[in-house]
Amino acid sequence: MAAGRSMEWVKGVKGVILDMCGVLYDSGEGGGQPIPGSVEAIERLMGSGLIVRFCTNETQNTREKFVQKLQRMGFNISVSHVFSPAPALLRILRERGLQPHLLVHDDLMAEFDGVEMTSPNCVVIGDAADRFSYQNLNEAFGVLIGLEKPILFSLGQGRYYKETDGLKLDVGGFMKALEYACDVQAEVVGKPSAEFFQSVLRDMDLQPHEVVMVGDDLVNDVGGAQRCGMRGVQVRTGKYRPSDEQHPSVKADAHMDDLAAAVDAILISDL
Amino acid sequence: MAAGRSMEWVKGVKGVILDMCGVLYDSGEGGGQPIPGSVEAIERLMGSGLIVRFCTNETQNTREKFVQKLQRMGFNISVSHVFSPAPALLRILRERGLQPHLLVHDDLMAEFDGVEMTSPNCVVIGDAADRFSYQNLNEAFGVLIGLEKPILFSLGQGRYYKETDGLKLDVGGFMKALEYACDVQAEVVGKPSAEFFQSVLRDMDLQPHEVVMVGDDLVNDVGGAQRCGMRGVQVRTGKYRPSDEQHPSVKADAHMDDLAAAVDAILISDL
Repeated sequence: MAAGRSMEWVKGVKGVILDMCGVLYDSGEGGGQPIPGSVEAIERLMGSGLIVRFCTNETQNTREKFVQKLQRMGFNISVSHVFSPAPALLRILRERGLQPHLLVHDDLMAEFDGVEMTSPNCVVIGDAADRFSYQNLNEAFGVLIGLEKPILFSLGQGRYYKETDGLKLDVGGFMKALEYACDVQAEVVGKPSAEFFQSVLRDMDLQPHEVVMVGDDLVNDVGGAQRCGMRGVQVRTGKYRPSDEQHPSVKADAHMDDLAAAVDAILISDL
Repeated sequence: MAAGRSMEWVKGVKGVILDMCGVLYDSGEGGGQPIPGSVEAIERLMGSGLIVRFCTNETQNTREKFVQKLQRMGFNISVSHVFSPAPALLRILRERGLQPHLLVHDDLMAEFDGVEMTSPNCVVIGDAADRFSYQNLNEAFGVLIGLEKPILFSLGQGRYYKETDGLKLDVGGFMKALEYACDVQAEVVGKPSAEFFQSVLRDMDLQPHEVVMVGDDLVNDVGGAQRCGMRGVQVRTGKYRPSDEQHPSVKADAHMDDLAAAVDAILISDL
């Protein structure tokens, strides 16, 4: 409907960055389900000549396994086009010579193969899901509070996400818990970090005003992209809630019913 | 040492409010250990004619069981002199006709005997310790996010506390996690809530300027009491950390090495 009122947001688009969970698919038991129409929408978009990248805060899997899961759902996506927090964090750890104490999902651990962790001088939390036990949180807290200068990295800062059986707490709340307990400010790696979006733009070789970000998370996808000078479109799937359309500080350039509708609007304007 | 420099803080004291954990005893396996000299200090204080009350954010036990534990350690304390969050919360639930979803310690559950909980319209969190699992946090989150107007009560807002085997995360971090995930502000019941301190002052029938609060928690004990017009003294036991003496916003009226030293200073001035 919004697209009918104004198509301003699709003018001059040369590239598209897509959030994945809640836009391409809904997560849940067995890896999740594609959102109807999204597999075909990705095909149309990839065949259009526009530059397309995927940008996820997914930290429940290595990037490789994550892309394999998407491929099994029918999405024609290659690993090199997917940007996720763990590889970005690994660069930061190397550059700053840091050794992490990890509180992350078991299935993410392979990303840290070969990383020295014998003398941790920072804590890294991701979407650890069931590993967010009181004991594991206390361990991470114990490392942080024992450091002269506590450093906490959070892989994303999502509030919650939708699985097929309901909404689940994301890493953001646990970041806030440790920030409060240790009186420290976390460094967020992933969306909505400007550094993270800029690394995607560099890879696309496009200017921010030439790119649209499409996501279901108003603050981290839409707001984060807009702060970098991109346009931000929210789809009404995934964690979208109607109240997002009256958010006090973030206003999407458009709302679209789903990815298929967003892609159609972009491709029509591109004709 | 601070007492040697200035005894201003003990002048005109008619009543004393004492924090318990970290001041009277250190918690831990088997219920904890009295801090050396504190059993005798309480005896001297109770025999002095000053009005004494105990004010705790303890929510791992009913008030009755908690006082029994202290009595077994040798402290001569009666239940009616102990103020804790759960009874204060029960009054609030009754006054506002609310039904709670509880995420509290198993041993606190008896405080809620007879409370109607079939249609929860608020969430209550206490120091649930090991019950702060991902699953239980998700359940509490699910109740909150499903309410048109989410109401979250937190029994205290401590950052962490000291057990004999180390520092442990207190309820405050989990309060922050749910606040963030649901975009809601918790109502804190217990210290440092002014309402909570004022209920103790009413029971003592004293004015705030006549009362000293002694605690190991700079923000919740000392700062909370000072905001109500009381004097606040921090002891260097329990969760005390040297950096507390350079806190950017809360300045204790005095620091004392332990409860015995604080009581001695108060009683000497009372002679």
